[in-house]
Amino acid sequence: MNKRLEGRAPARPTIKAVAAAAGVSTAAVSQAVNGTGRISEATRRRVLDAATELGWSPSASATALRRARTRTIALVVRRPTDVLGSDPHFSELITGLEGELAPRGYGLLLHLVADMAQENALYERLVAEGRIDGAVLTDARADDPRPDLLRGLGLPAVLLGAPDAGSPVPRVGLGQQGAGIREAFGHLLELGHRRVAYVAGPAELLHTRLRLAAFEEALAGAGLSPVAVRHSDFTERAAVDVTEELLALPDRPTALVFPNDSMAVCGIGTAQRSGLRVPDDLSVVGYDNLSLGRWVHPRLTTVDQQVQRVGAAAARTLLAGCGEDVPPPVLDGRPRLVVRESTGPVPSPT
Amino acid sequence: MNKRLEGRAPARPTIKAVAAAAGVSTAAVSQAVNGTGRISEATRRRVLDAATELGWSPSASATALRRARTRTIALVVRRPTDVLGSDPHFSELITGLEGELAPRGYGLLLHLVADMAQENALYERLVAEGRIDGAVLTDARADDPRPDLLRGLGLPAVLLGAPDAGSPVPRVGLGQQGAGIREAFGHLLELGHRRVAYVAGPAELLHTRLRLAAFEEALAGAGLSPVAVRHSDFTERAAVDVTEELLALPDRPTALVFPNDSMAVCGIGTAQRSGLRVPDDLSVVGYDNLSLGRWVHPRLTTVDQQVQRVGAAAARTLLAGCGEDVPPPVLDGRPRLVVRESTGPVPSPT
Repeated sequence: MNKRLEGRAPARPTIKAVAAAAGVSTAAVSQAVNGTGRISEATRRRVLDAATELGWSPSASATALRRARTRTIALVVRRPTDVLGSDPHFSELITGLEGELAPRGYGLLLHLVADMAQENALYERLVAEGRIDGAVLTDARADDPRPDLLRGLGLPAVLLGAPDAGSPVPRVGLGQQGAGIREAFGHLLELGHRRVAYVAGPAELLHTRLRLAAFEEALAGAGLSPVAVRHSDFTERAAVDVTEELLALPDRPTALVFPNDSMAVCGIGTAQRSGLRVPDDLSVVGYDNLSLGRWVHPRLTTVDQQVQRVGAAAARTLLAGCGEDVPPPVLDGRPRLVVRESTGPVPSPT
Repeated sequence: MNKRLEGRAPARPTIKAVAAAAGVSTAAVSQAVNGTGRISEATRRRVLDAATELGWSPSASATALRRARTRTIALVVRRPTDVLGSDPHFSELITGLEGELAPRGYGLLLHLVADMAQENALYERLVAEGRIDGAVLTDARADDPRPDLLRGLGLPAVLLGAPDAGSPVPRVGLGQQGAGIREAFGHLLELGHRRVAYVAGPAELLHTRLRLAAFEEALAGAGLSPVAVRHSDFTERAAVDVTEELLALPDRPTALVFPNDSMAVCGIGTAQRSGLRVPDDLSVVGYDNLSLGRWVHPRLTTVDQQVQRVGAAAARTLLAGCGEDVPPPVLDGRPRLVVRESTGPVPSPT
């Protein structure tokens, strides 16, 4: 903090003046103010008294300088506190962010909050206390208050989601959010599937809407309608329940499309336990292309939305805004289907 | 920070007065307020009572305020930047931490570093800049420099690992680290397995040593020796490679024990792809008891080391040190085997 303060305007009292008045080094002033180091209580008192006397305050320049120097990026997640355990999507996102942040000495400040009001209050506090250089916003909503709020607070931010030139903060993500789902349905159609059920995420999320619309359009284009559409909260429990329910339908679907890979893997396990073979009796498609999908047998057919690369691009966008020398973020195109082993030809009617 | 310094007025009661009233040193008052040091609960109470009595508030002091107000706990992970994607253990740990931190408005500052030197330098910087209230230390090493370093920096910390009364910082974890492995081997022995291979973590980690020693002792106790012991870096790639290698041994093992669940799930997938049935032809045991193990088919037999609860206990220990009113951390006992579907009777010799 020393050096930052030395660059301050000449008319203001300086840390050097405080150090001189207290008879200590500028480092000791820093320590007294920050409550660090090993200076004695008496010295600390003396420094703080001298600072008060001279009208010197470390925060005079702190806001701007601190802004540039916290080397901390916030990731506020508006989900239940067990989200990281239940949805590896966030682990992959953090992995992508850390791949850019860690080599440059930046940390990621993770906060889990219950709702949008808490999330907004948190940004206000973190900015007021000068704790972060920027923020990554997730789970975009159709009517999202955060971009305007953060612009008002002067905090650099990126919103994860499809690029949108009109957004008050940069949006980082793949374009054509519906493209992966369209491709997945085309793949199932080619394999002969006509009875496809769709498990979606929470209805209020933007990507839930975009993907569901793409799915319904694609089916309509083929003259079909979904066997069933179910919304979910992304959890393992929901995956098991919805799979059991869908497999018990009189007009049992021959293919299930899930909103993330962990739900798809749960769905495969649930189907296998009920005696069905995947993909012989049931095809399953995930979404995200997480490592998880390559570990299991059969390997998961899924939509790659490049979560790690989106995280990396978000980090680079923010790092560039912090004055770091980073390569420009690169994201190529759109979500794409990755065909593996969990999808196969429609079973012949029994 | 402005306000904290400007708010000081000469008439205010001083920390010295509080120390005198409580019959302790000013350092002890600091410790009581900051939740640092090793003063007794009784002393802490006495100091806080004296402070209340005199109308003294630590907000006069930058130290206390800052300490009490970053509402940020550091988690520095000394692993490759893709660790969160490749080892759900950390996701579960973070889930456990967040379950306690989030409801109290605390954030988790996540830093990934390459080595111990970087990790130590980072603590020094974070403390110097007053960015954190405490730290959770992971991946304990036999000769770990961090407890002494953090005590020197005056930063509250907990070290994850088996409790140890002699440790300079509290250690939070289950006792009897080898107990789960002993139980796992006993289970395999009962099922008739005699050819067991053991995949371990990196040799330099304390828990790797403790568990491997427990495994070798258990086998020796049964008059057996391991078919093979292999160290690994915890990755998916390593799981696939080591499984292929072990299954190609002339004296093929009938059971594999892995150091975490994601490696075990990769191992099961690799075995299944090579045409082996789990558990009919091969039994597999994981370690951690992550959600993942309940999603797959067959469900994973694994050692529950209560990662989330350890995370919660670590968070509570630190929160109590920050003056938060939290229930005392509770951890019951030792790692325990959870028997599911991936282990079964030894196949009859062909």
